[in-house]
Amino acid sequence: MIDAVLTKRLRQIVGENNYRDDQEARISHSYDGTPMLQSLPDGVIYPSSTEQVSEIMKALAAYRVPVVSRGSGSNLCGGTVPVAGGVVMVMHRMNRILEIDMENLTATVQPGIITGEFIAHVESLGLFYPPDPSSMKISTIGGNIAECSGGLRGLKYGTTKDYVIGLEAVLASGDIIRTGGKLMKDVAGYDLTKLLVGSEGTLAIITEATLKLVPPPASKKTMLAMYKDLYGAARTVSRIIEGKIIPATLEFMDNPTIRVVDDFAKLGLPRDMEAILLIEQDGDSETVERDIAKIREICELEQADRIEVAENREQAEKLLTARRSAFTALARLRPTTMLEDATVPRSRIAEMVLRINEIARKYDVAIATFGHAGDGNLHPTATTDARDKEEVHRVEQAFEDIFQAAIEFGGTITGEHGVGLVKAPFLEWKVGPAGLEVMKGIKNAFDPHHLLNPGKIFAKETRKRVVIERG
Amino acid sequence: MIDAVLTKRLRQIVGENNYRDDQEARISHSYDGTPMLQSLPDGVIYPSSTEQVSEIMKALAAYRVPVVSRGSGSNLCGGTVPVAGGVVMVMHRMNRILEIDMENLTATVQPGIITGEFIAHVESLGLFYPPDPSSMKISTIGGNIAECSGGLRGLKYGTTKDYVIGLEAVLASGDIIRTGGKLMKDVAGYDLTKLLVGSEGTLAIITEATLKLVPPPASKKTMLAMYKDLYGAARTVSRIIEGKIIPATLEFMDNPTIRVVDDFAKLGLPRDMEAILLIEQDGDSETVERDIAKIREICELEQADRIEVAENREQAEKLLTARRSAFTALARLRPTTMLEDATVPRSRIAEMVLRINEIARKYDVAIATFGHAGDGNLHPTATTDARDKEEVHRVEQAFEDIFQAAIEFGGTITGEHGVGLVKAPFLEWKVGPAGLEVMKGIKNAFDPHHLLNPGKIFAKETRKRVVIERG
Repeated sequence: MIDAVLTKRLRQIVGENNYRDDQEARISHSYDGTPMLQSLPDGVIYPSSTEQVSEIMKALAAYRVPVVSRGSGSNLCGGTVPVAGGVVMVMHRMNRILEIDMENLTATVQPGIITGEFIAHVESLGLFYPPDPSSMKISTIGGNIAECSGGLRGLKYGTTKDYVIGLEAVLASGDIIRTGGKLMKDVAGYDLTKLLVGSEGTLAIITEATLKLVPPPASKKTMLAMYKDLYGAARTVSRIIEGKIIPATLEFMDNPTIRVVDDFAKLGLPRDMEAILLIEQDGDSETVERDIAKIREICELEQADRIEVAENREQAEKLLTARRSAFTALARLRPTTMLEDATVPRSRIAEMVLRINEIARKYDVAIATFGHAGDGNLHPTATTDARDKEEVHRVEQAFEDIFQAAIEFGGTITGEHGVGLVKAPFLEWKVGPAGLEVMKGIKNAFDPHHLLNPGKIFAKETRKRVVIERG
Repeated sequence: MIDAVLTKRLRQIVGENNYRDDQEARISHSYDGTPMLQSLPDGVIYPSSTEQVSEIMKALAAYRVPVVSRGSGSNLCGGTVPVAGGVVMVMHRMNRILEIDMENLTATVQPGIITGEFIAHVESLGLFYPPDPSSMKISTIGGNIAECSGGLRGLKYGTTKDYVIGLEAVLASGDIIRTGGKLMKDVAGYDLTKLLVGSEGTLAIITEATLKLVPPPASKKTMLAMYKDLYGAARTVSRIIEGKIIPATLEFMDNPTIRVVDDFAKLGLPRDMEAILLIEQDGDSETVERDIAKIREICELEQADRIEVAENREQAEKLLTARRSAFTALARLRPTTMLEDATVPRSRIAEMVLRINEIARKYDVAIATFGHAGDGNLHPTATTDARDKEEVHRVEQAFEDIFQAAIEFGGTITGEHGVGLVKAPFLEWKVGPAGLEVMKGIKNAFDPHHLLNPGKIFAKETRKRVVIERG
């Protein structure tokens, strides 16, 4: 697919060592954080500047060679698997913080910087960048922007989208565009900034981002509330919001997750609880104290069996560990872990968890559920074994039912992971045929030859939706 | 343009009295809130449901008749002037609040509801919808969404875009799409919700919106700080933000505005001040007291000549009146008021105000400047007389220089009013030729025959940018 002339040109652009087509480079960029998906690229390229990205795109466009831009590939939707071959463009060399502007409270960064490193730097300057995807220790800001990553602080602070105010991006043609800026407001034409956030590398390659920073909260308090009744936990979530408190974090773990986490992290969690809520509030200390007291009252009213409020950061970290180790703990159970992010209006969480359990029983698969209760964003997680094709098929059927249930409850097939390969067949369920056509039109406007991350978002075939009669 | 068969069909859809082509209806929908722009439509239609909007679009599409959807037409960019004739679609009959969901903190509304009425209803339920455009007493939510309206609370709370989480819209084809939902997170495909917000009626006709509501702040405090030195006022703005305080409101008036407002509202403002800042903070009372005290310190440090902190709501209203009456007061001076919304990074405000004054002197026109200092969103306002073509030409030249200056300072041609007709020739200055091409591609994807609000955003000719050498 990539002939000698193009190979030579690519090496001219990035330097001899920064274009690789050896087996090692190809294999190690043939998969991402999503299980059971693999496809070999023809080559791997490592640009170091916007100009190089532009020149690469001009060369690839001339040869109609597809390109998958990526950071660390920690996504969970098969978003960076090069299913059409071509070139994988790794952004790790473009990893500088170009500016922190203390007067305008903005950061300008290259896409390849690791999210956690960026956050640490921002915090060392006494500022705050709220989006905190679980993958932040390895994920890149560019990847977060491509997938519109969420995180534990999403309920109060929003997701990546809410903090990207300007972008530089290279189009499929090689043309460079700049959107937004260090501006809190800009309505000059269509909002290309927000359109590119979450577009999964299918519209343009992001080469620079201007991010909004905010003042950090003065204090924070962390608590766990444990319930024998799932509905009590769900009602707690609703009552907190109805009580006009928006906590920084409002996370949920179901019984299967609690057990696995306790086995793994030895936290002494009560294994007979149906649900645990992890709740954090931040802000001024008076506000935090008052909110946490009110939340505690609500938990008690809803018959929480046990409530633990951390007295200091060390205790808080211990409580946070329970939630943070959920994925790792589940991943230890069986060889393959499949984690989804069906999302419902937050008032429907209890119904959704019960439905997920029902579906798991129907297909005889092991699904544990945890996630961002305040956002209605749940992570039903199946533990299985990729070598057992029959069981994997049942897991896939279960997820299909789960997506359908999310839609039925007024929700969506993905809250923060993106569509990628995995959910492409289900996108039409959420957006309808007319919505899908509009999205395809946008794709064609940006990328007429479908060179940018082909095969993602748009599936060759939409899965048929089975209408289930319910009593 | 609209023949008898189409007229009959339109009357069938909406009922005899809800399609009008008499002179009165046509003339009263030939202009909007923007001065000196007028163009007669062929007819005016008043749908009462999404289904009617869909049927109307199918009929108009079959005849290739353009349509301008509008609410109260209070925009300031010529956004709803029917320059290509066709049908004006007035959304005032679709003005219901369909649901306030207290559990999910969302409102679902039709586009024709008056913003102020919606806000009053939401507040009566103890909730808060922050976007507060100055036109809110007459503007509609649909119009706010089309223009992505800002307002005085934008600095802390963001603009309309930040509160629209779901939309129902009718495409040019008559197809109905639904985007987002009662969901705090949704990454199922491209973000059509945010794309439609601020698309000025050029991509689809919004027929329903789901809005995010938030808990109201417990208390609020209002102050004025007056400066003999413009830079002192500008530095105050920067120091407040640098001091990690984000006030709810941080507004600016220059000397010409102060004088005019004082003549009008008889507030006893000191007429020799170069700048007045109106500052509000809201939140928990401890936070508000602490922030206002810190802000007062900063104002004193920056040599504010006079500081007034309102002791109660009545006093606060008096202080707010100073800023709120700016436009009305200016509008009384001369027959024609032209108000723009060039926006710069907030660190560049003082330079921008000085540049505006320089430009006003250069063209010998009267320009007063007020606006949202915290956002860097200024409203240079020229008072002139539409009958004096020569003077109006000088005003237009001055605004052209002002847009250019905004771009030079890293800003944008419009922060909250939209591009419409007025700024279409300047859009390329902000977004570049490649950005403009991408936007045209999006337009074509949604509306291949350019039936939706033709002539807006995209100009036939882009104004040439004169590069000025500066010392």
